[in-house]
Amino acid sequence: MRAFHLTGDDLASLRPFDAERPQPGPGQVLLRLGATSLNYRDLAIARRDYLPNLPRPLIPLSDGAGEVVAVGAGVSAWRVGDRVTSHYTPAWQAGRFHAEYVDSRLGGPCDGLLREYAVLDQTALVATPAHLSDAEAATLPIAALTAWNVLETFAPRPGDIVLLQGSGGVSLFALQFARLRGAEVWMTTGSPEKAERLRELGASQVFDGRADWGAQVQRASGGGVDLVLEVGGSRSLHQSLQAIRPQGGIGLIGFLGGFPGGADFVVPMLAKHARLQALSVGHRESFLAMNRAIAQHRLHPLIDSRFAFDQAPQAYARMAEGRPFGKLVIEHR
Amino acid sequence: MRAFHLTGDDLASLRPFDAERPQPGPGQVLLRLGATSLNYRDLAIARRDYLPNLPRPLIPLSDGAGEVVAVGAGVSAWRVGDRVTSHYTPAWQAGRFHAEYVDSRLGGPCDGLLREYAVLDQTALVATPAHLSDAEAATLPIAALTAWNVLETFAPRPGDIVLLQGSGGVSLFALQFARLRGAEVWMTTGSPEKAERLRELGASQVFDGRADWGAQVQRASGGGVDLVLEVGGSRSLHQSLQAIRPQGGIGLIGFLGGFPGGADFVVPMLAKHARLQALSVGHRESFLAMNRAIAQHRLHPLIDSRFAFDQAPQAYARMAEGRPFGKLVIEHR
Amino acid sequence: MRAFHLTGDDLASLRPFDAERPQPGPGQVLLRLGATSLNYRDLAIARRDYLPNLPRPLIPLSDGAGEVVAVGAGVSAWRVGDRVTSHYTPAWQAGRFHAEYVDSRLGGPCDGLLREYAVLDQTALVATPAHLSDAEAATLPIAALTAWNVLETFAPRPGDIVLLQGSGGVSLFALQFARLRGAEVWMTTGSPEKAERLRELGASQVFDGRADWGAQVQRASGGGVDLVLEVGGSRSLHQSLQAIRPQGGIGLIGFLGGFPGGADFVVPMLAKHARLQALSVGHRESFLAMNRAIAQHRLHPLIDSRFAFDQAPQAYARMAEGRPFGKLVIEHR
Amino acid sequence: MRAFHLTGDDLASLRPFDAERPQPGPGQVLLRLGATSLNYRDLAIARRDYLPNLPRPLIPLSDGAGEVVAVGAGVSAWRVGDRVTSHYTPAWQAGRFHAEYVDSRLGGPCDGLLREYAVLDQTALVATPAHLSDAEAATLPIAALTAWNVLETFAPRPGDIVLLQGSGGVSLFALQFARLRGAEVWMTTGSPEKAERLRELGASQVFDGRADWGAQVQRASGGGVDLVLEVGGSRSLHQSLQAIRPQGGIGLIGFLGGFPGGADFVVPMLAKHARLQALSVGHRESFLAMNRAIAQHRLHPLIDSRFAFDQAPQAYARMAEGRPFGKLVIEHR
Repeated sequence: MRAFHLTGDDLASLRPFDAERPQPGPGQVLLRLGATSLNYRDLAIARRDYLPNLPRPLIPLSDGAGEVVAVGAGVSAWRVGDRVTSHYTPAWQAGRFHAEYVDSRLGGPCDGLLREYAVLDQTALVATPAHLSDAEAATLPIAALTAWNVLETFAPRPGDIVLLQGSGGVSLFALQFARLRGAEVWMTTGSPEKAERLRELGASQVFDGRADWGAQVQRASGGGVDLVLEVGGSRSLHQSLQAIRPQGGIGLIGFLGGFPGGADFVVPMLAKHARLQALSVGHRESFLAMNRAIAQHRLHPLIDSRFAFDQAPQAYARMAEGRPFGKLVIEHR
Repeated sequence: MRAFHLTGDDLASLRPFDAERPQPGPGQVLLRLGATSLNYRDLAIARRDYLPNLPRPLIPLSDGAGEVVAVGAGVSAWRVGDRVTSHYTPAWQAGRFHAEYVDSRLGGPCDGLLREYAVLDQTALVATPAHLSDAEAATLPIAALTAWNVLETFAPRPGDIVLLQGSGGVSLFALQFARLRGAEVWMTTGSPEKAERLRELGASQVFDGRADWGAQVQRASGGGVDLVLEVGGSRSLHQSLQAIRPQGGIGLIGFLGGFPGGADFVVPMLAKHARLQALSVGHRESFLAMNRAIAQHRLHPLIDSRFAFDQAPQAYARMAEGRPFGKLVIEHR
Repeated sequence: MRAFHLTGDDLASLRPFDAERPQPGPGQVLLRLGATSLNYRDLAIARRDYLPNLPRPLIPLSDGAGEVVAVGAGVSAWRVGDRVTSHYTPAWQAGRFHAEYVDSRLGGPCDGLLREYAVLDQTALVATPAHLSDAEAATLPIAALTAWNVLETFAPRPGDIVLLQGSGGVSLFALQFARLRGAEVWMTTGSPEKAERLRELGASQVFDGRADWGAQVQRASGGGVDLVLEVGGSRSLHQSLQAIRPQGGIGLIGFLGGFPGGADFVVPMLAKHARLQALSVGHRESFLAMNRAIAQHRLHPLIDSRFAFDQAPQAYARMAEGRPFGKLVIEHR
Repeated sequence: MRAFHLTGDDLASLRPFDAERPQPGPGQVLLRLGATSLNYRDLAIARRDYLPNLPRPLIPLSDGAGEVVAVGAGVSAWRVGDRVTSHYTPAWQAGRFHAEYVDSRLGGPCDGLLREYAVLDQTALVATPAHLSDAEAATLPIAALTAWNVLETFAPRPGDIVLLQGSGGVSLFALQFARLRGAEVWMTTGSPEKAERLRELGASQVFDGRADWGAQVQRASGGGVDLVLEVGGSRSLHQSLQAIRPQGGIGLIGFLGGFPGGADFVVPMLAKHARLQALSVGHRESFLAMNRAIAQHRLHPLIDSRFAFDQAPQAYARMAEGRPFGKLVIEHR
């Protein structure tokens, strides 16, 4: 079967190769991938900016969707023909997170899904919502579940205002999920064209992300918004702390790097009695709950662009050139 | 000024009388009522079915909206001309409920709002959402805040299913609020015409409230719904317990009477690990939060019928003849 | 190996028999039982009062502790020699409860632990706290975890008062756990001797369980206690509703039967804005958390009496003759 | 009556003066102070390090206890002779914090309690627990309620480990309250003598606060503690982030200043999925709850040293020379 793996320290080391089609063991299923999607994590792993000790060669990408084509002994959860989506951290089924769960992550340290077929544990999958294509479902495992997890944790309610930054995958999912919960969504972006699109998608107000939007948000909201989803790290965190109301929340997510650091935010946090909560992708029980919501409301993920399987390197290049508007998808068939 | 009071033990004892216009003391405001609304509580108090020891004569009705026409010394929260709505239990501003708070309730034991003018403490009011008429705002204090309180307490999320009973004021507000939160709403009703109207208002499924809907809901939901708002007392509680999923919730609200009693529901509760929570109107901080949501989403309450001030007895009669579809409002001007 | 099974519909049908020692398959361990304990559930199953469709013959008892003597392929969690305790509902590892989990329960429908050796999935066990004997650890799976689960759910804090009923296994564990959390514990009992022992164990006040203790508790607490653990069903539930404060909680636990039923408690629930939550044994993640607390505080379970393996029928008889003070344990070695 | 006020920008500007004894207006009480206590806030206000725009002259100190000696019109909550303790932010009775509440704070911007008599609103007081002297009660309003608030918010349970820093007033109250909740307490200190005293007070482990204790705590706990109470600002925050478990919590409290700033802690927060929550003193409802716990367990605050009223400047000097072990109290009589 066709597959790609990372062989070195940069994007150029992403190479196609011919692999053996794997066989499912007990409790496992053989999945034929229909699509995968990229996260910023994948770019950073390819460049060895993140988790530099991951093995090489490594088949990348954690997020994919496809069809069950064979099941191993003792598999009760799935049948051949089922449409399924991968779960990023298979060991995290429910409950509290444990450090060792990271060892089960797809796309590093475990081989990922940029291939025609993959074998996964039956608990490493969730059913694909029926109204979604594989391309759409492939966007869910990291970006959508991170956004869902933030909203579950802070639980904004109707009447609240949630501020989102930019138009990356997580922020756009958060836009959809926050509106589902009845919250009003405000956003920031550096681009007037994107601002227009964000308004069309339901953002009530859009602020210029290059300006001091924290104070503007504070004023416009008459005392601060209820929740900010912080994707920009230390620099924008100061804006976020200005933007929230007393006892407001900041969900700190995203990638483990790229943070300039330096500024102190203990003082503004104390002044606001703020809650800063770092979050990441959720457990499988959350994924199931999110999919119920996606199915119930027939939500469709926002896809920036689609690439053929052979064009996987171009998908990485698109990710590298700057924040796309929504998700990047590779179609395997 | 014109006013009504209850002088005896039945609806016939509701009599108009001529009252002195009151003057606001320190920390109080004089309110000119624009509208009031009825709750089942008011009917039961008139009949002495409920709280039979309330004094007579008693000016009834707890829910009203109008305009501030004078303020007493030290009033900082309101100015003449402000549009305001009454808060049912003025002593309950925030936090935990204390038994003695019931002594502050409007419409009994304290005189209520079925009059042209009333004096209230400045903390017994909230600002009326600008897009609502007095008639609409007058429906909020008990019915809307009870529905809001149930949804705040159980916090259903997108993907959840909430089952509501009938088409009284609380259930119709709960329909609106549950949908705001992204939950799917199912309802019961005994009337095909009402079923049609409930579907138009956004109910995804409507069950025949005269049948054994508990088992039907259980089947249709594939294992039970997440939350039931129980307004019917002991008899329908058995249906509700059948309708919920394991660890599901039942919000028990409504009036303190009319319950046939008798059936044991400890066993089904244990079988479901159910949560049964009795709830009532919330505190003023909740009222403010609810009004933010109502304003943000420009919600309009559902009014069954409107009566002129002189026709207050007819409003009571309409309440007595059976559950209306939405709220009954008396317009004072 | 020696074992007991139920062959009919009454206690007399509990018979010793000679069984094959089982072998652990992949992911399983072979456990040599050191002790088991009885719950009221076991008595009711033996009498076919509860779950009358369970198969016969059935090896009873869900709660046991012992030592790992062999491990199957792929077992990473345990090594030979580890001291372990059984988890009652092995399929419930964490998160939300699902109805189908009951199929995995030990002691019915699955064969239980009243035997010398048993094979269990590696996830059906937790490590035994080092300071506990097998006899002590065998009391934990149902009774202790139920008590822990109630206290986790209602989370009483220092300054709160928790009322417990009787001196069964769950109530005595709840006494220990509630005191660990800094809550004051009040209890009811029908026996003056038991009252004395309960005071020695830390109960601040003990009420006569045969009297109308609800009103007494209400008065003594100046407005009601924060939480009642209800083990008696419908009849004492009325007392419990009298005993709690406004917005107080009642944890409804215990066995699915023996409830006389009849009385209506919707009205008192509404009057109190009460929360009634039916609870049962928790998931394995809770078991681990409970064991951390037990180890940290070196708690010792309260054992009413111990029986040799051959005397298992006498243990059942002791359970049948009335509520013991603490747990009944069968020592297998 | 005798009083002190701040007249300038340093400790030397704290001057005794002769003031008129105030009279209680409607809803107010006249309080004869028995004792006050100092917080770091008071030192920083005296030096104009904090809130430099506070008026001069200003009667300092927010925390005091004494006796009601007269009541104004309409006061129902208190009678002459009642023993009461001041509530730091009188406008914050319950519920959410609002920015404008800071205007009601005692000891700045409002005149504080370093005087013989003071007039306060009846809602600015709580009853003093009967087993406490005025000197002991005077330590509660800021330090104890901050510690209580942190523990209420993170709600550690038996089996958890809470790490506390140093031996200031808040940390010592947190030691008492965390142990009440059944959590194990570990501490840091830079002084071997203090380490010994902390162990006597119930700390299970004490780490050298001058060393890299974060990694030591991580190792000793086998994966991190559940909660850290961070009083040291940015520098120790890095240690705290090392010390917690995945999804662990850090309560960020204390004074709004003295933070060196600079280091980036977004990366370690993300790696831990940490929750960082800035907290301050709680509302009056929390104060009442805390006092119930203090009374129930007969807790006694830890007092470092006591000063006569005339020696108020020496109390400030003691605060200025370094973190005392417990609270500094001024006895007014």
